[in-house]
Formats: sequence, structure tokens, C-alpha cells
Amino acid sequence: MQRIIGIDPGSLRTGYGIIEADSAGRLRHITHGCVNVSGRPFLERIAAIHRGLRQVLQDFAPQSAAVEQVFLARNADSALKLGQARGAALVALLEQDLPVCEYTALQIKKATVGAGHADKTQVEHMVRRLLGVHEAIQADAADALACAICHAHSAGTQQFWQSREIVGR
Amino acid sequence: MQRIIGIDPGSLRTGYGIIEADSAGRLRHITHGCVNVSGRPFLERIAAIHRGLRQVLQDFAPQSAAVEQVFLARNADSALKLGQARGAALVALLEQDLPVCEYTALQIKKATVGAGHADKTQVEHMVRRLLGVHEAIQADAADALACAICHAHSAGTQQFWQSREIVGR
Repeated sequence: MQRIIGIDPGSLRTGYGIIEADSAGRLRHITHGCVNVSGRPFLERIAAIHRGLRQVLQDFAPQSAAVEQVFLARNADSALKLGQARGAALVALLEQDLPVCEYTALQIKKATVGAGHADKTQVEHMVRRLLGVHEAIQADAADALACAICHAHSAGTQQFWQSREIVGR
Repeated sequence: MQRIIGIDPGSLRTGYGIIEADSAGRLRHITHGCVNVSGRPFLERIAAIHRGLRQVLQDFAPQSAAVEQVFLARNADSALKLGQARGAALVALLEQDLPVCEYTALQIKKATVGAGHADKTQVEHMVRRLLGVHEAIQADAADALACAICHAHSAGTQQFWQSREIVGR
């Protein structure tokens, strides 16, 4: 069993989702949520994202992390804000020595919906189906869970199981 | 005596400079340097900026921090990279509960050179004169020292001294 945290960083809300995956590819939903920092001064937001995620990592102790890779921001100003939020989130993961993988939106959508052009509603729908969650999931947390699912299905994670099997012999 | 760290964040090199300022506005150079992370994979860079600055904070124990505020990046891509580096640097400061102030390039140049249109050579020259440093200072570290000098002269830092005087009575 591998416990994975997915992160969808944002300057106002940073979604997170934690799942467990076994070597047969079976997935289990552990938790999800958002670090909501809107309405605070900018520097407090950066501190709160880092602190909030660090708490989630302490509480749920994932073994690896998957973060959505951002290629295109709307403009330089929003890229700068998003970048700082993302930097704070990454530090929370990296300082725990968690292995971190980055996935593009295309990879994440393909891994959950099976198509790269899926919209947010479709992603949320498939995340709930794949994890057996009955309640609606907030978009940022659904994206974070989708990112974790993508990681569970990725080559790197398959290698994790292979290396375990070798160790286990 | 107040010990101030100035930071000039960058995705390849993050400059830092530490000075001491007394209530009469006298400045003393303590140290300066760069956390150079070029040539490493991106995630390692983010971790190294955070780790590098945390070490500097441990070694020199500044009481407040000043960071250059970035308004305009060249484009969304470089803004995203710079943003993540800046986020990692800010977390290092904020998790120590250091009071952090941000200053624009204009404010920093005015505080050191006296003019907002100064170039990097002039800033480095004046930083050396103001702090009595004889050797050349790398541009990123000189900018960081300039940021610390700006903070030493700012209204917020004057308030620091006023509150100290009240406490001292």
C-alpha cells in the first residue's frame, strides 16, 4: 500500500487529496480538502499555505507527492502570485523529503477521465467514481485527488512497487 | 542594534545580505552571499533555496527581513519560476516568525543611490560605500544588501526603535 498526496496549488486556495494505492492499482480515498487563504494579506497567505500543508502531512503521513505542473498562467502578474503559492507548497513537501512528481493537466485528465480535453465537472465526477466518494468534492480538492490518481497509475509509481517486490524477496 | 537580512530572490541565484543598524541610523556590514542553485533540476532548486536561507538565518539570527518586491516579470514563464523561488525564500523567513517587509526596486534604489533610475553598478558602488566594504560584491548580494539598507531607513524600522525606547523607559 502506498499513500499519495496530490496537490493543486493556488494563490487563494490550495487543494489537497490523499489516496492509497496498492500494487494491483486499487485506490482508496483517505481525505481531501483545501487550504483556503483568501482574504488575508499576501505574506500571511504564503505562510498559511506552508503551515496548512505541513499539518496535513503530519496528520496523514503520505509517502509520495504529486503536484500539478503549471505551464501557462494567464499573465505575468497571476503567474507570480501562483508561483509563490506553489513554491510554499513545494517547500512543505520537499522539507519532509517526500519524493515529488509533477504532472501536466493533460496527463492528469487522461489518467482520470481518459481524455485530455475533460472539463472540471467531468474530472470531479470521475474522481468520485474511481474513489467511491458519494458527496460533491470542491474543484481544487478534486483536481488534487486527480493528480494523486495520476501518480498512482504512473510509471514512477509502478517502479516503486517493482523495487518493493525486489526488496521483499 | 537591529540585525536585518535583505533578500533578492531569483530562480537561479538568491542573494542575501545582513547588516546591523543602530537607532542613529549607523549601518554595519555583517555578511552577504548567494544561494546558487543553477544547474540543478527545478524541484531541487526550490528545496535548496529554502534550505540555504534557513541555514543563513540560523547562522546569523537576523531580527527582521526585507525582500525586494517584484512587479513586472518578463513573461508568464519566468514569473512562474521566479515566483516559486520567491515563495521558497519567503517560507524560510516566515516560518521563523521574522517580520518581513517588501520594498519596490524604486524604494531600494532611492534609499541607497538617492535616485530611482540607478543601474546595478551604481547600487553596488553605493552599498559598498555605505557599508565600508572594499571588495566587489556580486550583483544579487549587493541588491540584497541594498534592500536591507532600505529597510533600515524605512518608517517601519523607525517605529521599531520608538517602541524599544518606550519599552526601555
